[in-house]
Amino acid sequence: MKIGILGYGNLGKGVECAIKQAEDAELVAVFTRRDPASVKLLTAGVPVVNVSQIESYKDKIDVLVLCGGSATDLPKQTPEYVKMFNVIDSFDTHAKIPEHFAAVDKAAKETGHTALISCGWDPGMFSLNRLYANCILPDGEDYTFWGKGVSQGHSDAIRRIEGVKDGKQYTIPVPEALEAVRAGKNPTLSTRQKHTRECFVVAEDGADKAKIEQDIKTMPNYFADYDTTVHFISEEELKRDHAGIPHGGFVFRSGKTGWDGEYNNIIEYSLKLDSNPAFTSSVLIAFARAINRLHNEGVNGCKTVFDIAPAYLSPLSGEEIRAHLL
Amino acid sequence: MKIGILGYGNLGKGVECAIKQAEDAELVAVFTRRDPASVKLLTAGVPVVNVSQIESYKDKIDVLVLCGGSATDLPKQTPEYVKMFNVIDSFDTHAKIPEHFAAVDKAAKETGHTALISCGWDPGMFSLNRLYANCILPDGEDYTFWGKGVSQGHSDAIRRIEGVKDGKQYTIPVPEALEAVRAGKNPTLSTRQKHTRECFVVAEDGADKAKIEQDIKTMPNYFADYDTTVHFISEEELKRDHAGIPHGGFVFRSGKTGWDGEYNNIIEYSLKLDSNPAFTSSVLIAFARAINRLHNEGVNGCKTVFDIAPAYLSPLSGEEIRAHLL
Repeated sequence: MKIGILGYGNLGKGVECAIKQAEDAELVAVFTRRDPASVKLLTAGVPVVNVSQIESYKDKIDVLVLCGGSATDLPKQTPEYVKMFNVIDSFDTHAKIPEHFAAVDKAAKETGHTALISCGWDPGMFSLNRLYANCILPDGEDYTFWGKGVSQGHSDAIRRIEGVKDGKQYTIPVPEALEAVRAGKNPTLSTRQKHTRECFVVAEDGADKAKIEQDIKTMPNYFADYDTTVHFISEEELKRDHAGIPHGGFVFRSGKTGWDGEYNNIIEYSLKLDSNPAFTSSVLIAFARAINRLHNEGVNGCKTVFDIAPAYLSPLSGEEIRAHLL
Repeated sequence: MKIGILGYGNLGKGVECAIKQAEDAELVAVFTRRDPASVKLLTAGVPVVNVSQIESYKDKIDVLVLCGGSATDLPKQTPEYVKMFNVIDSFDTHAKIPEHFAAVDKAAKETGHTALISCGWDPGMFSLNRLYANCILPDGEDYTFWGKGVSQGHSDAIRRIEGVKDGKQYTIPVPEALEAVRAGKNPTLSTRQKHTRECFVVAEDGADKAKIEQDIKTMPNYFADYDTTVHFISEEELKRDHAGIPHGGFVFRSGKTGWDGEYNNIIEYSLKLDSNPAFTSSVLIAFARAINRLHNEGVNGCKTVFDIAPAYLSPLSGEEIRAHLL
């Protein structure tokens, strides 16, 4: 399958790497809003093209992977580019998924294209695990924990505080909460009981560190409802020890079976990822394969991970996966 | 959906319980090879019918759940009953899945029915997790561990030994092996390094316990390749402490992402089940829902869990699952 990438940030680079690992995928072009001359790819011989020229690739790409942000890019880009291409995105503003789905579905059906939105690990693999587990154990409770990992939104929030030069925030699940869920205790957990937040902050010269710490810990929505730890470190330490973008998390379903709910069951799915964008990209490429196949079968419109039979994700045949993976 | 159950052992009883938990399922009849008068159901008002009369239910059942064993029952029953019904089974002889699939697919297509084979947790949910994880991380290693749980086959093997009155065997993953996989060490593990076996044995009066222990520990295939512990207990202790059929296990994919495989990733799926047959039954009923829907859409032939879009497992609409589970 021939893949195009729109947007060459961390996610776009991750998609480029995932294409290299996929035996049946080929990178055709990377589209950017920047000056193409300023963008250097890892893959040799692939053109970088200004997005204004994207229409000329209309018949040269099987799936366009949209690597913009959920806040402002994707709500516009996905419904726009699905008019020219089959597309896939990682739209992750949970509350706005229904309206995004409707907009993409309408444009896709009008032009006979196929789209998949909200793909990655959450939404994405975590969603799939919530759905499977809810269908198997209708009488039960869901728990999702995130981390240990870097939250981009919380890191950005720290950086906006007066006197902060740079900073990084880790979201960490509370071990006691994980253990209570794993033990089938079905705890009711407050926000504070589920996650802690750990911040590594580089202060400007002469900044009031006590005030910075206070500003972080009392910030509504982001930190006020959590137990937050703040460490002041040097710029060198931040670069040396906190350059990565690791993430991960846990999805649990704790549910009952038996005639009177006499049996407990715990389903646990977890991810531990050295690079959040690289893993998200690998999920995107697997689902791009499915979108390409569905399109070739004449299926149009907007899909989510829930609509994709798992066999469509594999480059192997039905016989091969039944023989080796069932 | 109207469900029939063929075979009323532990699995058949589990299916009956799972139907009680499913808002959209109704138990129509239980079919048995025994004298129906000798079988007492948990559900009030549902007939127990000798299997010789099953054809009279041809148009009264949406999906027939086959609850026989994989060794001798299912290889005959599934291709036979798919001629009259949509069917689902939990056939788990991994090596014979391709031929079972072919036989069921042929009979299903000839008569316009829909079947799903090898459903449950392994094969089943574990298979799905292997497939998803392999598609996302093509450069990686798979690890499956079983337990802690009761192995029926190994318990039966113990009971066949001279001087043994009763017995139960637990399969236990080696904690150090789990930790090495979880830590991304990609260990090469021998059979002995992955699982230990723990046996609880009731000896006949006057039996040679030393010989029984020796016979167990040296039994080829079942125990010789494992570190095995044997405990002699009384019949009362066995009944009191080992009456349940718990099971579970772990599926891991440890794989690399990035341009040069510089990032490690661990995907882990685990189950901890108080009752193996009750959980397997809950999986069967979720997939029975999918089979009923596919049949109503005109899809015939034999399927596996790989062929089912996850949304088909849910009693909720696409809008509902996108809004609440994505």
